[in-house]
This record gives sequence, structure tokens and C-alpha cells, in this order.
Amino acid sequence: MLYPQEFDVIVVGGGHAGTEAALAAARMGCQTLLLTHNIETLGQMSCNPSIGGIGKGHLVKEVDALGGAMALATDEGGIQFRILNSSKGPAVRATRAQADRILYKAAIRRMLENQPNLWLFQQAVDDLMVEGDRVVGAVTQIGVRFRSRTVVLTAGTFLDGKVHVGLNHYAAGRAGDPPAISLSARLKELQLPQARLKTGTPPRIDGRTIDFAQCTEQPGDGMPGGSNEGQVPVFSFMGKAAMHPQQMPCWITHTNERTHEIIRSGFDRSPMFTGKIEGVGPRYCPSVEDKINRFADKDSHQIFLEPEGLTTHEFYPNGISTSLPFDIQLALVRSMKGLENAHILRPGYAIEYDYFDPRALKSSFETRQIQGLFFAGQINGTTGYEEAAAQGLFAGLNAALQCRGQDAWLPRRDEAYLGVMVDDLITKGVTEPYRMFTSRAEFRLQLREDNADMRLTEQGRQMGLVDDARWDAFSRKRDAVSRETERLKATWVNPRILPAAESERVLGKAIEHEYNLFELLRRPNVSYAALMDMDGGKYASSDVSRETLGEATDAVLEQVEIAAKYAGYIDRQKDEVQRAAHYENLRLPSELDYMQVSALSIEARQKLQKHRPETLGQASRISGITPATISLLMVHLKKGG
Amino acid sequence: MLYPQEFDVIVVGGGHAGTEAALAAARMGCQTLLLTHNIETLGQMSCNPSIGGIGKGHLVKEVDALGGAMALATDEGGIQFRILNSSKGPAVRATRAQADRILYKAAIRRMLENQPNLWLFQQAVDDLMVEGDRVVGAVTQIGVRFRSRTVVLTAGTFLDGKVHVGLNHYAAGRAGDPPAISLSARLKELQLPQARLKTGTPPRIDGRTIDFAQCTEQPGDGMPGGSNEGQVPVFSFMGKAAMHPQQMPCWITHTNERTHEIIRSGFDRSPMFTGKIEGVGPRYCPSVEDKINRFADKDSHQIFLEPEGLTTHEFYPNGISTSLPFDIQLALVRSMKGLENAHILRPGYAIEYDYFDPRALKSSFETRQIQGLFFAGQINGTTGYEEAAAQGLFAGLNAALQCRGQDAWLPRRDEAYLGVMVDDLITKGVTEPYRMFTSRAEFRLQLREDNADMRLTEQGRQMGLVDDARWDAFSRKRDAVSRETERLKATWVNPRILPAAESERVLGKAIEHEYNLFELLRRPNVSYAALMDMDGGKYASSDVSRETLGEATDAVLEQVEIAAKYAGYIDRQKDEVQRAAHYENLRLPSELDYMQVSALSIEARQKLQKHRPETLGQASRISGITPATISLLMVHLKKGG
Ligand SMILES: Cc1cc2nc3c(=O)[nH]c(=O)nc-3n(C[C@H](O)C(O)[C@H](O)COP(=O)(O)OP(=O)(O)OC[C@H]3O[C@@H](n4cnc5c(N)ncnc54)[C@H](O)[C@@H]3O)c2cc1C
Ligand SMILES: Cc1cc2nc3c(=O)[nH]c(=O)nc-3n(C[C@H](O)[C@@H](O)[C@H](O)COP(=O)(O)OP(=O)(O)OC[C@H]3O[C@@H](n4cnc5c(N)ncnc54)[C@H](O)[C@@H]3O)c2cc1C
Repeated sequence: MLYPQEFDVIVVGGGHAGTEAALAAARMGCQTLLLTHNIETLGQMSCNPSIGGIGKGHLVKEVDALGGAMALATDEGGIQFRILNSSKGPAVRATRAQADRILYKAAIRRMLENQPNLWLFQQAVDDLMVEGDRVVGAVTQIGVRFRSRTVVLTAGTFLDGKVHVGLNHYAAGRAGDPPAISLSARLKELQLPQARLKTGTPPRIDGRTIDFAQCTEQPGDGMPGGSNEGQVPVFSFMGKAAMHPQQMPCWITHTNERTHEIIRSGFDRSPMFTGKIEGVGPRYCPSVEDKINRFADKDSHQIFLEPEGLTTHEFYPNGISTSLPFDIQLALVRSMKGLENAHILRPGYAIEYDYFDPRALKSSFETRQIQGLFFAGQINGTTGYEEAAAQGLFAGLNAALQCRGQDAWLPRRDEAYLGVMVDDLITKGVTEPYRMFTSRAEFRLQLREDNADMRLTEQGRQMGLVDDARWDAFSRKRDAVSRETERLKATWVNPRILPAAESERVLGKAIEHEYNLFELLRRPNVSYAALMDMDGGKYASSDVSRETLGEATDAVLEQVEIAAKYAGYIDRQKDEVQRAAHYENLRLPSELDYMQVSALSIEARQKLQKHRPETLGQASRISGITPATISLLMVHLKKGG
Repeated sequence: MLYPQEFDVIVVGGGHAGTEAALAAARMGCQTLLLTHNIETLGQMSCNPSIGGIGKGHLVKEVDALGGAMALATDEGGIQFRILNSSKGPAVRATRAQADRILYKAAIRRMLENQPNLWLFQQAVDDLMVEGDRVVGAVTQIGVRFRSRTVVLTAGTFLDGKVHVGLNHYAAGRAGDPPAISLSARLKELQLPQARLKTGTPPRIDGRTIDFAQCTEQPGDGMPGGSNEGQVPVFSFMGKAAMHPQQMPCWITHTNERTHEIIRSGFDRSPMFTGKIEGVGPRYCPSVEDKINRFADKDSHQIFLEPEGLTTHEFYPNGISTSLPFDIQLALVRSMKGLENAHILRPGYAIEYDYFDPRALKSSFETRQIQGLFFAGQINGTTGYEEAAAQGLFAGLNAALQCRGQDAWLPRRDEAYLGVMVDDLITKGVTEPYRMFTSRAEFRLQLREDNADMRLTEQGRQMGLVDDARWDAFSRKRDAVSRETERLKATWVNPRILPAAESERVLGKAIEHEYNLFELLRRPNVSYAALMDMDGGKYASSDVSRETLGEATDAVLEQVEIAAKYAGYIDRQKDEVQRAAHYENLRLPSELDYMQVSALSIEARQKLQKHRPETLGQASRISGITPATISLLMVHLKKGG
């Protein structure tokens, strides 16, 4: 049957990409339908029960700044929060949280169920409706045809998914869930370029059988024994520590020589090493057998035992993702301290699935081949919830913009990790599952977690992604930051007025001439708090006091301080960005026939013809395209070629 | 691999049967392993979010009296409780509760995870290990071989499950879950007698699209507007109203002539009416198309809109289970008052699955063919969570008894609904999914919800199913009932002492001679409370006051009062039971060759030879076996034949 209502956006898949995509499109006022296998698995974490980390936390904060769900759901479900790299520079500081799986899922489902303009429908999608070169809807397993103007496909690890444990394998979307076979076949028919990847997960352990006395406790931030006792971090700009459920510690144990021997003894039955798995796995989230194989000289690896929730005894042993046969899994687990009697609740496994070459996507994540069809998440060759969520939001908002007849939103590499990721994917493609790192961002001094809101909330507001409550809170914060920055710049400290002793106490030495407070704050050892405390507190302002700003105070002062301390670096980076901007954003004519650009090598012509970059910046990042090629191309374009 | 630990009992399947089976065996001290597809779906309600009802509530109370989980989980997850038939006799009164799906599942999972002797393992079972005529374990999808002394199979609707919506169908265990194909094939190889049944479920509706103003509100008991305001019932003997989460109303709407027309217009695409489904469905839980077809003269049916939980807008429209094509589903839903704009979240569907002829089971639910292999739940041809739970508990405890080398526990038909159900199944088999009704129990005056604890707790305690807390509470209650009954019997009311006016007020007329209080209580219009209030309260006892008994008071007084009021009927029924007991329990020699019993008709000989009843009582209930046959058989046995 043809469903009577026509939608603007259909999202296929209710994982991390799909839920953000659907929420984003609906927030923007589009009539949105989320089609997924099972309403009970909406927002399910397929692997580790944690959100964030270095690079990943940055993405989560960006999703949050654009009104997304992930950070808030983590605040509601998080049972341990940590600020990683807290002693390092602000650019690489990142939030990471353990989440109670059940609470996290419940938070996501509640947001979905309460989102206006969003409809849920439980049913596998077996087919896409395509007319000419345009997608016009999706067809479910029982033959219901839903029409729509755009479709966002976020099928995760489900397309022709195959689970491997040792030399055994079976079809599944992930453990316990059915695979998407028909849709995979249909996409093959549509001849979208695709291949196989794989990812893996560790066995889960019954906490009742762990001897925690043999492990090292690792409390979260704000917990007794953790950093900043009493102050548990929050993830979302709109989050409050009061949203958090009870906090729990993690535990640490280690692999040892015997563990490694056991692992090696299973190599001949490893689906990876025996070639059973064709798909490539994530280099940076390797399986334990991979680690033992590649780093043969390391005789121990740290394993985190992470609780899966408040109401379960289940533990996630972070660091032993594996697809070795189950007997090896059991022996390797039990070879570790504290796990001698461990009972495994769920075996570890690897999953192999179809992904689509992201170089076949436009920079909006619309497929080049089929108009109105967007891809997001694991299906684009990435790994990780955060990467998926960010892509989902991105594809969802671009589908919505297309429905509105507006141009795509394309954040630049110097604006957002989202921009870095999209650009990396569409220009370089992937050879292994892509995950985010701060090192991928050349402008990372600017792309911090702490300023994700400053970078993106306004753009989100313009697109209709950001609601009034967030916008008001954000505006208050932004105004407070700029007011206080201005005040610091306008407040002068005079050597005649400031007592020398006070100057030495706070600044280390007497000042020689007049400085404004902002200049003083740039000094490495001078903190904002110390400045405000100087000379009896005469430089403090009630405008940024806790009474005036409430919980926002810390965030405001952090921005002011970072702006002062890192101004030099940041300005330099901004200059670089500006200098690069010209060619970075220079659009390449979409009809340009590279094969005719005789100044270029044949190889370069072929590459450009195949990838069809949208801008010169994208062209420069295609592997094998040299700076020389870019110069020649610029010359060609200037000639009006 | 062969798993290093050997178990006493392996339970396959984590539905209602499987969880009770596993918990029971573990409570009895057996090393128990629960193998199931997915730990996240433990205790999942496949269909309606409610527990109990007439006949079914009785089973739940029996499971509870034996220490089972279902009633307690309902107390923790129940969002609406009602005592059905509360104005009728105590035998047919029954508890029914709506449950929040998520809370119910969480309660079951918590009990499982915290049960000593019980291990969980997530993995599909593809094969059974059989040596000679004995089961010795189970093999999972990834080839892990778990050895055990007994196996309880509770695969529900999953064996070769096939979902139908209109003329479309696909393989699944239920919507969103994979089917059990390999295990089904393996069981066919083992040549256990099997066939197909089907059951169905309605589409689910987004509550945001229901116009409740057009529906009639139905509050639960204890809720404002409901019976007994302020007193919400509890299900478990150990339950307290304080365990309940927030309570919610249901809503009522109706089908109408147009609804029925729409339904009829889909008959030519109904998988049932076009012969696509071979399996027979439950006559007493018919699909809406079945109802319209069979009761063509009825022009309206009541439909209950039941909330699926506190944190979801999802509603379950009880009464429109259907496998009609989705266009018909949508139109029929929207033809009803209040549902004109309803959005369907999940389509309704029917599922067809393998079941096993329960006549091939011994009265302990062990299969006759394969020793140590027990079957319980939907797989035995029943329908309903309560029927499944009761069977699961029963099979689990009998597997445990077998491991201990003890005789099976076989409750009689006059002891428990469980006895009725087991006996019905193994003697009569099924032609359609079997569900419990009070009418199935010939001794139903004795088999009440209110005395389930009295009937079964002691037996449960002896087997090791009942923990100390329950046993103490039960003993206190039982003692209080018997003390108070004795006191009533020993307290005499004398016409000379009781003022005539008081006698008339309380008893309707003056008493002519001395009566004890128990005798007076037998009178239809005399309540316990009124008696205790008589003559300035001189007959009341502080022994049964709320101060002494606390929350147990009502239950104690209810027992005392029922014992008095129904003593006549109950005694008569007890006599009947006793008279029948002789032949009911007469065991038939297991080696008896019925074909040689020449006194019997050929047909009777064949039937008996095929079914091999264990007792004469069972023989008498085999369809086609007449009382005359039974007499002849008794004669034959007396002759020592
Ligand atoms: C075994 C395993 C190991 C992993 N290891 C890692 C790791 O090491 N590191 C890491 O960061 N992350 C890991 N992950 C997490 C995961 O891979 C993600 O990156 C993330 O879940 C991807 O989100 P997604 O939304 O793209 O897809 P998913 O979370 O997979 O969600 C896909 C959704 O789409 C639905 N769907 C699929 N096909 C259809 C269809 N045809 N019709 C309707 N609905 C459909 C599914 O039911 C599901 O709801 C692992 C996952 C698995 C399963
Ligand atoms: C479509 C539908 C309609 C229904 N309609 C009604 C109704 O009208 N009235 C009513 O009272 N009840 C109805 N039910 C409820 C249901 O049928 C039950 O009666 C009840 O759930 C049966 O309990 P069970 O424990 O026997 O099986 P289930 O609840 O089905 O549980 C079976 C369990 O076994 C697991 N399992 C199965 N095979 C394997 C394997 N090979 N390896 C590992 N694990 C396995 C499954 O994952 C699941 O956990 C319906 C159910 C469905 C699906």
C-alpha cells in the first residue's frame, strides 16, 4: 500500500545517526518519519557503554550546540564522567562518560517520542523508491510504501551483517538483532560503490564473578577519590549535574604474558588471521588479537572494567574486543587478575557489514548518484557513536534544508570537527573504519570542546535547530563573555596605584607600566581568580558573579580566560585560515571536464574526474593530488578554462 | 568447544516460561544456565502489556505462592490494577494489571541477575546434545557446547517463526527478533511430534494522536473514580502497594459498522482466510477479522486503549489483534471514535510457529522420547504469559527434582490451576492455543486466587522454592487464620446475653438458641466486621487487629470469612474430590499393552496405546474415552491383567 501521508524526510535506522537525523529534521519543522527495525532498540549502544573521549567528545559537544540529543541523554544516563587531558591545553581536553545503557536508551526514546513533527514506525526497510535519479520514498518489509522528498539512510552495521566468533559465523545486524539483507541487495542493484568493513566487541562479564579487590578502582571526576571531588562534569550545554543518576567507579586490570600466549594460541582459528573476514577493522580500536600481533613486545595492556549500568551486574572489559573462538575468549578473560572465576554473559564477536564509499557523497552527504538520498553513520565507513550522531545530525539538517529549497550547510574545517570529518570522508574516503582524533583537525586550537557552543549555536539557531531555552541561555553566556572581556580590556592597572607587594604576590613582580587586565591575564601564571582577588578585590565585577550568572559562571570565566591566554595562538591560526580561505572555498565548476585539462598529469586528471571535488580545498586533500597539481588547476581556472 | 562447567539444568529461552524455569531451578539449589537470544529481551512481553485476568490471575498467584517472579514484577511494574468479578463469588474473582513494559522487564532482569546458582548467557541455541535417549546439553550458534543433566526448552513463538501481515510474510521470532530456524530443524530431526499454531497482535498507536476526549476513561481500582479509592490491589503475597509506580487509566472506544465494513473489505487479502497461515489461532483471543467473521450480527466491539508505560506515549488497542494488510489496519483504526487521526507505531501481525504435541510429555513435562528434556510455555501449544510462566516454573522445578533424584511434583486438578493445565495439556493435547479459564477447573471453588498461598506455599517450601521471608510471612498468616477460625468456633453467643435489638440489627432477627460465631458468620448477610461490632464490640479480638497483623489483616479476615461462608460448598467439593481420588490417582502400569486388553473397543485400545496415560484419571480425560471404557479398564486392572 501507499501510505496516505507524504513526508519531507524519511530516516531509515534508529541508531545514533538515525535518531539525531530524525530529531534534527523534525526540529527544523520537516514532517519526518523514522523507520527502524525495533522501537525497543532506539538509541541502543551496540558496543561500549560510553560516550565521548578525545575528539569524540568534541563531536558530541558540537551535536549538542546544534540542539542534538546525545549530550543530554548522556547527562541523564551517565554514571561516571571524566575530563580527559584536564592538565593539558584546552584544545585536547575532552569529556567522556560511562552511561547506564538502559537510562541512555530511555532518554533518547523519550526525546524521540516527544518531538513534534516526528513519527516513528517499527518495520525493516527492504527497498527504496527511486524515480529517475531521485529517491522518493522507502518500502518496508510488509510492503508499505512511504513517500518522501528525501531519505536519510543510517543502517549502521546491519547491511548484510555477518557476525564472526572464531571460524563460526552467522547473519545478524549485531548480536541479537536481524541483519538487513534485502536492503543491502537493493543498494547493490543501485550500484552505489560499496565494500566491506568490520568492527568488534569484547565479551561481557558478570560482575558477581569479578574479584574487585584484585583490581584498581578508578573513580570518576567529582566522586570521592576522583578529581574535583563534589563537582561531577556535565556534557550538554543545557545539562546540570543534578540530572545525573548515581555515579559509579570503573576498575582496572591488565593482560599478562599468559593472556598473550592464550591469545596467540587462537590465531589459527581467528577469522581475521585466517581470512574469513574480508572487511578491514578499525586500526585505532583494534581487537586484542590485533594488539598482541602488532605490538608483540608489549607484555601487558590495561583493561578497564566498566559497569554497564546501575541495575545490572554486567561489566564491559574495555580493551579486549575480540572475535577469537569462545574457548580462547574464556581462557583469556580468566587469565587476568580479578577475573579468574569470571562468567561471560555474552561472547565477544566481530561483525562484517557493507559500507558505502563516502567519496560518492556530496559535501552535504547527499549521494551524487541519487538525488535526495543521504547517507550517515557507520554506513559511511566510520566507527563510533559520536561520529554517527554527528553525521546523522548533519545529514538530517541537510535533508531538511533541501526540502526547504535552501543551500546545504557545510561547516568548514576551521569551524567544526563535523566539518573536518565530512571533508575527510568525502575527499579521502576510508580504508579502515574512520574515527575522530584531535590530530585530524589542523585548526584544533580553535575547535575546542569548550567553545563548541560559541562556534555553532548561532548557526543552529538560524537553521531552526536550537530551541528558545537553549538560545536564551546561550545568548546570556555569550553576552556575559563579551561584556567581561571588554571590561578587562578597558580596566587599567597602574603601577602607581597597585601596591608593589600586591603586584609581586599576584603577578610575580612589580609592573613597569600600565596594563589592562586582559593583558595581565595573558601571562602564563596569572589566573583570572588571582587577578580578581588582587588589591582587596577591587578589580572584581558583580556582573560575572555566581549571584548574577548562576551555574553559567564557570563556563563564562573559562571562555574569558582561554581567550586571553591563547589569544596569540588562536589569532595566528585565524590568519592561517584566512590565508587558506581563498583557495579552500574556491568552488570548482561542476561541469568541468578534468580529462581536458592538459596541464595536469593523467593520473591527476583521472583522480579529479573520479572524485569530482566541490572546492579546491577538497581537491587538495584527495590522496595523490599534490600542491603542484592544485597550482596548475588554479591557473587553469583563472584562465577561465 | 565444550564449556568447562557442567550444569544441572539448562533453560533455553528467556521469555516468561524460561525465566520462571531458570529461577525455580536455581532457587532449588541447582546449577542453572539460562541461554537466550538476547539479554535485553529477558522477560519481554511480546503482546499486550498486562498480566492476569480470570483464570490467568489464578495461575500468577500460584506461581507466586511457589516463590516465582511474575506477581512481584507486576507489583513493581504495574500501572493499573483491577480486581475483576469483584462482586461475584471468590472463586472467579481475579487480579489483572497493566504493566509498564520497561519496568516489568527491568524487574525480571534484576531478579535473574541476582539469583544465586543462576548463570546467564546470551546466544541462540541451535542444537541439543543427545546421547542415547537422554539429553545431555545444548549447543549454541557459535558452537559452544554446554553440558547439563537436564534441559528445559521454552522457545515460545520462535521455532521457525513466520510473521504475516496481509499476504506478506517473513521469518522472525516476533517483530524485531530473529527466528530459531536451526533449532526447529533439529527438533524435527528428533521426530518429536509437532505442528503449527499462530497468534496475533494489534497495531500500536501513538498516544499523541489519540483524542481521549472521545473515549471513556477507565480508572484502575484505588484510583480516583475507580473502585475502592485509595486502595490499589497488589498481586504478590509479598507485594505492597508502595511498590507500585504511578497509576494510569485506560480508555475505551468501540468498533462500528464502518470499521466492520473496512475489515470485511480486507478478507480477500487476509492470510488467515486465504489459507496462507496453516496454524490455528486462539479461539478465545481471536483476531478482529475472526470476530467480525464469526459474530457477523454484532455491530460494535469494545476496544480498550491501554497505556504501554509511564515514559512512552505508546498505546495498545486491546481487541483489534489482526494480520490484515496494513492499509486495512490503518483504515480500521482510524474509523473509530477518538482514533480518527491515529498514527500507528508498529503494525499488527500474526505469527506462525512450531509447537509440540503436549501429549508426548509425561505429567512432569519431561518429553517421553528424550529423558531429561522438558518443554514449557508457548511451545506446548498454549498462549499467554501466565500460562507460560506457570509451565516454566513447573518444568524448572521438575527438572531440578530429577537432578536431585526425587520424584516429580504433580499437583492434582483439585490442588491448583497448574494441575488442571498440565493435566489438560498432556491428556487432551491442543487443537488451538490453550489458555486458562476458571471453567476448566471442575474444583474451582477450592482453586481460588485468595487461597493460592494456602494451597501451595508449604509444598513450595518443602521443595526449596520458597525463601525464609515468604515462609515466615505465610506462616504468620496461616496461624492467624487458624487461630481466629478456632476462636470463632469456640466463642458462643447466647440469646440470654445478646440484647434482642442488637441481634436484630446485626443478624436480622433474634437468635433462638446458642450459636458460635463461626456458625453466625455462615449466614449470607452477616459480615465478619458486623459480628465483631456486635454488642459493643465484645466479640472482637486484638489478635487479628491491624496493630497485631499489620498489612496481613485483610487477607487473614478474608480467609476466615470465606471459610465460613463457603464451607458448605467447599466441603461438598472436597467429598467429590475424595470419592474421585481413588480412580483419579490409580496409576496405570507403564508396561501395560492396551492392544491386548480384549474387553476394550479397538478404538479405545488404540487411543490408550498412543497416549499412554499415567493414571486412570488421565485416561478418563482423553477425548473419546468413555466412562464405560474406564470401568472396563478398572475391572481389567483388578483382575491383575
Ligand atoms: C560488534 C560491534 C562492535 C563495535 N565496536 C565499536 C568500536 O570498537 N568503537 C566504536 O566507537 N564503536 C563501535 N561500535 C559501535 C557502532 O559501530 C557504531 O559506531 C554506532 O552504533 C553506529 O551508529 P549508526 O547509527 O550508524 O548505526 P547503528 O547504531 O548500528 O544503528 C543502525 C540502526 O538502523 C536500524 N536498521 C538497519 N537496517 C535497517 C533497515 N533495513 N530497516 C530499518 N532499520 C534498519 C537498526 O535496527 C539500528 O537501529 C561497534 C558496534 C558493533 C555492533
Ligand atoms: C504476535 C504475538 C501475539 C500474541 N498474542 C497473544 C495473545 O493473544 N494472548 C496472549 O495471552 N498472549 C499472546 N502472546 C504472548 C506470547 O505468545 C506468550 O504466550 C508468551 O510470551 C509465551 O511465553 P514463552 O516464555 O513461552 O515464550 P516467549 O515469550 O516467546 O519467549 C521465548 C524466549 O525464548 C528465546 N528463544 C527462542 N528460541 C531460542 C533459541 N533457539 N535459543 C535461545 N533463545 C531462544 C527468545 O529469544 C525468547 O526470549 C502473543 C505473542 C506474540 C509474539
